[in-house]
Order: sequence, then structure tokens, then C-alpha cells
Amino acid sequence: MTKVNAEGQKEQILNAAAKLFIEKGFGGASMQEIAEALGVTRTAVYYYFKNKDEILTALVEEVTLRARRLSSRVASEATDDPKERLRALVHQHTMLILSHHNEFRVIDRTEQQLPDRAYRANEDAKRAVLNNFTCAIEDGVKAGVFRVVDAKITAFTLIGMCSWPAFWYKPEGAKSAEQIAETIAELAVQSVVRPAKRQLKGESGVSEALALLREDLDHLSLMIEKTPRPG
Amino acid sequence: MTKVNAEGQKEQILNAAAKLFIEKGFGGASMQEIAEALGVTRTAVYYYFKNKDEILTALVEEVTLRARRLSSRVASEATDDPKERLRALVHQHTMLILSHHNEFRVIDRTEQQLPDRAYRANEDAKRAVLNNFTCAIEDGVKAGVFRVVDAKITAFTLIGMCSWPAFWYKPEGAKSAEQIAETIAELAVQSVVRPAKRQLKGESGVSEALALLREDLDHLSLMIEKTPRPG
Repeated sequence: MTKVNAEGQKEQILNAAAKLFIEKGFGGASMQEIAEALGVTRTAVYYYFKNKDEILTALVEEVTLRARRLSSRVASEATDDPKERLRALVHQHTMLILSHHNEFRVIDRTEQQLPDRAYRANEDAKRAVLNNFTCAIEDGVKAGVFRVVDAKITAFTLIGMCSWPAFWYKPEGAKSAEQIAETIAELAVQSVVRPAKRQLKGESGVSEALALLREDLDHLSLMIEKTPRPG
Repeated sequence: MTKVNAEGQKEQILNAAAKLFIEKGFGGASMQEIAEALGVTRTAVYYYFKNKDEILTALVEEVTLRARRLSSRVASEATDDPKERLRALVHQHTMLILSHHNEFRVIDRTEQQLPDRAYRANEDAKRAVLNNFTCAIEDGVKAGVFRVVDAKITAFTLIGMCSWPAFWYKPEGAKSAEQIAETIAELAVQSVVRPAKRQLKGESGVSEALALLREDLDHLSLMIEKTPRPG
């Protein structure tokens, strides 16, 4: 265990525990093995967590409750622009999953074994996140910015887009977490947005026009690469 | 167990086993309990499966290998329209997940416990599905029908959209599987498609891309002239 403050040490333990629970299942990994993975004594782990149940509860707090807090903050600070609100929700949720992918999978896998209080907290948090996504989508539809979609199925589906990296993300991969989150946020927004009219107005018109230009340039490069050279 | 043919009985056993593995974990559920859930003797279950490992292997064959076969069929029968090809891939994968949601979650949760051969078959099948999605996206981008996106991250994300129902779908819910699959397929297609006006067609791709660039530059000039100068 690297020398850090108590919070840092707790996080190291949670991290190591999450990895072991993924490898061996919650039932298959012991406090002893968690200690060994960190190169410390069992006592050092027991200092922070009485048992594996406490570790699971802490994992729920670390991931699901944080997801709830973050999505509620975006919902309350909501800009008037439904696109930007949805983009912020998706981006932030994806970043959370990317930085806690093992923890997230452990919670999913051990849902049935979660201690009562943690189980209810987890259910409540998931419902709150779903609700924040659903409202953002409904508002966008009402404002005429989004297509008329079933807000609930769409909310579930966009949460799926954000959450799926837990099942494939490798931190050592070619793309940074930020690049992945941006790509997913754009896919999510495009999935619901109504085709933009080619009327550009106001100050956002300039940046919108620039975005279109960039897209056209990307496309042009691609076309030129594909076109066989003459001669 | 309802009286049906051997295939039907096997499917009933797999279904009951999947539900129990979700509730109690793979380690926590016994062959005895699987038999009890079906109201038959343990011998009746052993007639079809020697042990829990064989049940897990059969679950992999039922879900992941079928996903692979189905997505490869769409890929090989591919229509020329990248939108319709992607729509078919997403629709079909979502329908498979909806009809096997418990089985799918069990495979995810017990990945580490899968017998060797089943583990490799599962990994190969997932890779093949990813590959079929990636190619469909790349082809759409090359054809100028899709936005310029990272095909691999996008493929993972669309697979996430299809797979997420495993985590929330209730067969007794208000929407039919067909309605859910259609909604998700439309979200997936919209997430990548270029607005109709901006799609490039035919061999004149390069000149069309240039025309769009000119159009966007005109827009941009207009915007800048219209924007009030600071000061």
C-alpha cells in the first residue's frame, strides 16, 4: 500500500477488493487475500473495514451514491439548453464509470448479497439517476429540441451507453477516458436530437457552423484517402 | 416441468437455472434447487446435464454463440444500405437480449468460472459480434452516410445500448419486446447518421464534400457579420 492519507488508503483497499471480487467472486476472495494484494497485513485492512460486507457497502457509496449526487447536481444546475444538459449528464456518468469500472461491476454482480441498507441505497440511487435522465429527455422533447421518444426506454438506453465501458474499458487502451466520454456523449445527444435546421442564429451559430466545417473537413480527408491517385 | 420435447425441457432447465444463479450466485445454487424450482426430481435434471458446469456451457451456447451466428448472418446478407444493416444488427441483438436477459446476466457474472472451452467460445463470440458492428459502422462512415466516428468505441457503445435491457427489462412491463427493440434500433441509427442533407452519395463524394464546405463557409461568414462587435 503506498503511503497516503486515510481516505487514500481506504480507496486503495476498495480498489484491490473490487479487482479480487471480479476475479474470484465475492464469496471466493478473503480479507487475507485483499491484504496480500496490497502487500500489507490483514490487521491493516481490518483497521478500515470490519468485514467484506463493509467493503461492499463502501463500494456502493463510492459509485452509485456518487452517481446519484453528480446527476442531481447537473439536473439542478441545468442550463436552459436540453442538449447541453443531456450531454453533461452522459459525459459525467461515463467518466464516473470509466474511473470505477471494476467497482461498478462488483456492485452489479453482488447486488443480491448487498447488506440491506446498502441494497436499498443502491436501488434508490439508481432510480434517482434514471429519473434525472428521464426528466432531461422529457424536457428536450417538450422544447422541440429532441425527437418524440419514449423518455423512459431512452433514459435506460442512454444509461446503458454510459455504463457499458465497465464491461470493456482498459485504462491502458489507446483512447483516453476523456476521449471515450466525449464520443459517447456525442452519440447520446445525436441519438435523440432532431435534425438541426441549417438556419444558424445567435452566438452559438458561429460555433455550430465551425463544428459543421470540421465535420466536413474530416469527411473530405476520408474521401481523398479513399480516392485512387491518378497516374 | 411442463410436458414438452427434449429441447423444450432443456430450455426450461436453463431458464430455471439462470434465475437461480442470479438470485443465489452460481456457487450458491445446487442441482437439487434447480430441480425443485421446476417441480421435478434431481434425476430428471441430471438426465440432461451432468453438472452445473454443463449448464453454464449450455447457457453460453444459447446466448453468446447465437448472438454471433445472428450478427454474422446480417453481416453476410448485408443490404447496401448501411443504415438498414446497422438497424438490423441492433434490432436483432436487442431482441436476443430481451428474450434471454437472465441467461445473459449469468454469463457475465460467471465469466471467470466458465469451463475453459466455454470461456474461449464466449470470448470469440463477443469478438465476432463486436467485429460485425465495427464493420457496419466503418462502411457507413466510408459511404458518407454516418458521421466520422471512432468505429470501435461506437460499436462497443451500440452493443451497450442493445445489452442494457438485460439489467432492467421486465417481461410484464408496459412495452413489448418488439417496441423496445425498435426504439433502441432507432436511437442507435440516429446516433451515427448524418443529417439527410449532409449525406454524401455516389462517386462524386469529394466534390460533394467540397460543396458542403463552401456552404458552411458561407454560413460562417454570415454569422460573423451578424454577430455584434464587442466594445
